[in-house]
Amino acid sequence: MMVGVTDGFDEGCLFCRIAAGTEAADVVLETSDMVAFLDVRPVLKGHVLVVPRFHVVTLPDLPSELYSPFLAATSRVAGAVVSGLGAQGSFVAMNNVVSQSVPHLHAHVIPRTKGDGLRGFFWPRLHYADGEAAEYATQLRAALAGTS
Amino acid sequence: MMVGVTDGFDEGCLFCRIAAGTEAADVVLETSDMVAFLDVRPVLKGHVLVVPRFHVVTLPDLPSELYSPFLAATSRVAGAVVSGLGAQGSFVAMNNVVSQSVPHLHAHVIPRTKGDGLRGFFWPRLHYADGEAAEYATQLRAALAGTS
Repeated sequence: MMVGVTDGFDEGCLFCRIAAGTEAADVVLETSDMVAFLDVRPVLKGHVLVVPRFHVVTLPDLPSELYSPFLAATSRVAGAVVSGLGAQGSFVAMNNVVSQSVPHLHAHVIPRTKGDGLRGFFWPRLHYADGEAAEYATQLRAALAGTS
Repeated sequence: MMVGVTDGFDEGCLFCRIAAGTEAADVVLETSDMVAFLDVRPVLKGHVLVVPRFHVVTLPDLPSELYSPFLAATSRVAGAVVSGLGAQGSFVAMNNVVSQSVPHLHAHVIPRTKGDGLRGFFWPRLHYADGEAAEYATQLRAALAGTS
């Protein structure tokens, strides 16, 4: 899918303007469908945002033709923070609606190295009561049965 | 790409065994290439892991044929935690190497609702010194120039 900047373009959206080149950013990757640039207020230095040029708000809104281009660009950037910045690994994340500061889909790619001070989202963990996990799984399976 | 469980299968890998059905899990979605199941120790209840059946460790290791199936399954689950569990949004994340507890690629999909207590990875933010962002961008562009 080739998406021109006039398709799905929202002049009021900061990330649409960066993709169109009318707003300054430290762009690190441009493809026909995607743009990647530095987050101006990084979680760790080298923090990149990967953005589809086509304006959608959340991952479930993304047209399926853009799944592969979006993950391809994100994967390339996740490789580049290791090969280019010397990180040991990366953290890739998307906030959909809650904690989403700019309402245009973006994947955060953050270079990670042990001892970098990020523990983040993944602690502490909860525990399910007896039978509770099965209930959650049943609700999710029912919701997923109507999707493809 | 149709990947059978005997391709890229690692008997020593917990997620390969879940994908093969030889290890129990609360599975919520199965496709020819992907399996999604509840994390046994959720960040928030309803926390799902989306896993390619094909064994790779990190996102940059994923074969490009699986980009679309992987993001399709992840997007469906991100929709289902809203439609099925009543969350307002979702958090989608992958840890590559650092903070990665199981060395088989997995996307965390966590239901999010305002006030759920997760602030997470995204605070506090750093600031670049003058000229520093441009240096990081230059290093990343150089690393990305050799990839596709």
